[in-house]
Amino acid sequence: MDYEALFGQAVDTLHAERRYRVFTELARNCGSFPVADNFSGIGPEKITIWCSNDYLGMGQHPAVLAALKQAADQFGAGAGGTRNISGNSHAVVELEAELAALHGKEAALVFMSGYIANQTSLATLARLLPDCIILSDADNHNSMIEGIRQAGCEKKIFRHNDVAHLEELLQAQPAGRPKLVAFESVYSMDGDIAPIHAICDLADKYGAMTYLDEVHAVGLYGDHGGGIADRDQAMHRLHIIQGTLGKAFGVVGGYIAGPKIMVDAVRSYAPAFIFSTAMPPAIAAAATASVRHLRSSQAERTRHQERAATLRRMLLNAGLPVLVNQSHIVPVMVGDAGLCKAASDMLLADHGIYIQPINFPTVPRGTERLRITPSPFHTDAMMQALTRALLDVWQRLGLRREAA
Amino acid sequence: MDYEALFGQAVDTLHAERRYRVFTELARNCGSFPVADNFSGIGPEKITIWCSNDYLGMGQHPAVLAALKQAADQFGAGAGGTRNISGNSHAVVELEAELAALHGKEAALVFMSGYIANQTSLATLARLLPDCIILSDADNHNSMIEGIRQAGCEKKIFRHNDVAHLEELLQAQPAGRPKLVAFESVYSMDGDIAPIHAICDLADKYGAMTYLDEVHAVGLYGDHGGGIADRDQAMHRLHIIQGTLGKAFGVVGGYIAGPKIMVDAVRSYAPAFIFSTAMPPAIAAAATASVRHLRSSQAERTRHQERAATLRRMLLNAGLPVLVNQSHIVPVMVGDAGLCKAASDMLLADHGIYIQPINFPTVPRGTERLRITPSPFHTDAMMQALTRALLDVWQRLGLRREAA
Ligand SMILES: Cc1ncc(COP(=O)(O)O)c(C=O)c1O
Ligand SMILES: Cc1ncc(COP(=O)(O)O)c(C=O)c1O
Repeated sequence: MDYEALFGQAVDTLHAERRYRVFTELARNCGSFPVADNFSGIGPEKITIWCSNDYLGMGQHPAVLAALKQAADQFGAGAGGTRNISGNSHAVVELEAELAALHGKEAALVFMSGYIANQTSLATLARLLPDCIILSDADNHNSMIEGIRQAGCEKKIFRHNDVAHLEELLQAQPAGRPKLVAFESVYSMDGDIAPIHAICDLADKYGAMTYLDEVHAVGLYGDHGGGIADRDQAMHRLHIIQGTLGKAFGVVGGYIAGPKIMVDAVRSYAPAFIFSTAMPPAIAAAATASVRHLRSSQAERTRHQERAATLRRMLLNAGLPVLVNQSHIVPVMVGDAGLCKAASDMLLADHGIYIQPINFPTVPRGTERLRITPSPFHTDAMMQALTRALLDVWQRLGLRREAA
Repeated sequence: MDYEALFGQAVDTLHAERRYRVFTELARNCGSFPVADNFSGIGPEKITIWCSNDYLGMGQHPAVLAALKQAADQFGAGAGGTRNISGNSHAVVELEAELAALHGKEAALVFMSGYIANQTSLATLARLLPDCIILSDADNHNSMIEGIRQAGCEKKIFRHNDVAHLEELLQAQPAGRPKLVAFESVYSMDGDIAPIHAICDLADKYGAMTYLDEVHAVGLYGDHGGGIADRDQAMHRLHIIQGTLGKAFGVVGGYIAGPKIMVDAVRSYAPAFIFSTAMPPAIAAAATASVRHLRSSQAERTRHQERAATLRRMLLNAGLPVLVNQSHIVPVMVGDAGLCKAASDMLLADHGIYIQPINFPTVPRGTERLRITPSPFHTDAMMQALTRALLDVWQRLGLRREAA
C-alpha cells in the first residue's frame, strides 16, 4: 500500500483547482506594525501587512508585552498540566473573571483557541440537553460546524441572518424540546452583522437557548469592547457568548462566557477542555492586560472604525469592487481562485503589499476575494499606496470592477 | 424551558458520583519548582507539586524563558492570524524544522495543543484514505478517540498493547484496504510502554500506516529526546509521530512529524489547523529553545529516571500500592473516587503536598489513583516527606496496601 501516493493525490487535487495554499513566511516587527519582514522569497524584504486579524495591533501593546514577560519570569513558560492536574493557575482564573465581567456574565472558561472553545463547548452543551436540536446559521464558522457535528444531535441550518427562516424552523419544533440557536455577530469574510435582538426575540418566544460567536467583534465594538452584543446592549439576552483572545486582543486563546452552571457543565464534561494542557500563565496575563486596556480605552476602537471607513471610501472612489458592509472588514471581490492568487502574488512581488488570497473552502467558490483589514496603524499614505497597487494589479490581470 | 436546571442536573450527577472536579488554584514559582503558591483555600500557602506534567521543569529553564521574552519583544504577543492569513511566522517555521529533525522526519506541523494535533490530524488522514479502517489501542487518549470519531470511518479497537489481537484484526481485513494503526508509546495513567517494533512488524506485514502519540515520552526518552521510538531506534519505521510541547518541553502546543506529503495533506485539509489562529512566535521560540536544549543535553533525562526509580523504591518499601511500570510515572492506587479525593484533600491540607485525584473518566472506575510524577527537582527530603504523608493518609483513611 503506497500511502504517500494516496496523500499525493489529495494534494494534487488542490493544485489542479489552483487552491493549493502557499503560506507567506514573515516576521512581524514589534513597534512597526503593520510593517513586517518577508521571508517568502518573493517581494521586497519589508512589506506592509493588510490582512492581519490583530485588528488593533494589541499584539505589540507595551502593557500586553510587559504582562507577558513579567508573568513568564514569575511563573515560568508553561502551565505544567491540564486544569485538573496542576495546571489551574491563578493567572488563568483571573483572566476568566475579567472575561466574565467583560460580557456581564457570571462565569467564563478559557481554552487554547477560539476554535476549541466553539467545537468542544457546542458539542458538550448539546449532548447534555436531552433530544436537543441545534439551529445553525448557514454561514457559521467551521469550528461551530465541527462542534455541532460532534454533538451528534439533529440540526437545522437557517439561511444566513434570515430571521423569518429561523422562525419557521423554530415553529416546526415541539415546545418542550430543547433548542440551541448558534450564530455569529460579525461574519468574518463578508463583514456583515447579525440581528442579535431579533434572534433573541425568537429565542424568547420559542424557548431556545442562544450561543453567539463574537470572535471578530470582541475588543472592537461596544463601550467596553464586549462585541456587537455589547454595542447593541444585548449581552444579557444571550446564554453563551464565545470569543477569541487571538484577534483584537492580540494574543492567543479562546473562551466562553455565560451562566455559572452552564460554564461549569462545559468545564466538567467537555473533552477538549478536560484532556488538554492549560493555558500558560504568561499568555493569560497578557490577555488579561489586553482585555483590561480595551475595556477602558475607546481610542483604538474609534480610530479603527475611522480607518476602515476611510479605506472603504478610497477603494470605492477608485472603482474597485468592494463588498460594502457595516463592519471593519473590507473585502475586494475577485471571483476566481487562480486570479485571486495571482493578484496576491503580484501585490507582494511588485508592491510589497501582503494580502492573502481567500479561496474555497474559506469562502464559496466564485466568491474568491482579497480580504483587507485596516488597523489603527495603517496611515493615509499606506492607503494611497494600496489603492494604486490594487488598480495596477486589477488592470494587469483584467479583473472585474463590479462586486460579485 | 429552564436550561440552567437541565445543566444543573448534569453537574449534580458528578457530585452524586463524588467525581465533581475542584481545581486547585495555584501559582508556580519560577526558580523554585516544584514548590508553588496555593490559592485554593485549603492547606498551607507554600506547597510541593507532585503531579506536574512539566516533567523536567523545563518551564523555568533560563534558555526557554529568554527565548520567550526575546521573541515577544521582537515580534509581539500574538500571531495575528491563521497560518494562511498572515500568521505564518518565521519562528513557527523554525520550530517545525527543529521538530522534524528531532524525529528524523521530512516535515512537521504545529498546533495550539497536542489535543488538536491528534484530533484533527487523525480525522483528516483517515478521511483522505478511501475506505480507511482505523485500528486503535483500547487505552488511547481521548484526543485520538475524538479524532477517530470525527473521521467517520470504520474502526476496530485492539486490546491494550496486545499485538496478537492487533494481528487478528489486521488479518481479517482485505489486503488492498487502507489501514491506520493508532497507538501511544508511554500510556500516561498506568505508565506502561507500547511494543513499538512488534507493532511496526505487523504494520509492515499487513501494509498498514502507523500513527504514534509520544506525548508522555518526547523530551524524556532516547539519546535526543525523540521519545520511546528514539530510544528503541524505531522512528524511521513510523509514518506519523505526534507530540506535545506542553509537558516535558515545558511550554504549550502540539505537533505531528512525518513524510512531507502526509504533513502537507494535513496542513492543506485539517479544519482545526486551517481555521484557527497560529501559534504566537514567542511560544514557538520558547519551544524551539526547549527542544534544542533537550536534543543535546542528557542530564535532565538521566536525573529524571533516577528520581522516578528512587521514589518508586521508597514507596514500595513503605508498603504503598504502587503500580509498577518501566516509565517515569508512579501511580499509587486507591480504587474509589470519594477516597481518592479525600486522600488528595488531606495531603494538601495537612501536609502541603499537592497530588490531584485521578478519577473517571480519566481512568476506569475502580482504578482511581494518585498519579505521582517526580521531576529532577524533587529532592530526597521531599520524597521522604511524601512517603510519610502518604502513610499517614493511608492509615487515617484505612486505604488498601495492595495494588489494584
Ligand atoms: C468566526 C470564528 N470563530 C472562531 C474562530 C477560531 O478562533 P481562533 O483563531 O482563536 O481559534 C475563527 C477564526 O480563527 C473565526 O473566524
Ligand atoms: C496521550 C496524550 N495525548 C495527547 C494529549 C494532549 O496534549 P496537550 O496537553 O498538548 O493538548 C494528552 C494530555 O494532555 C495525552 O495524555
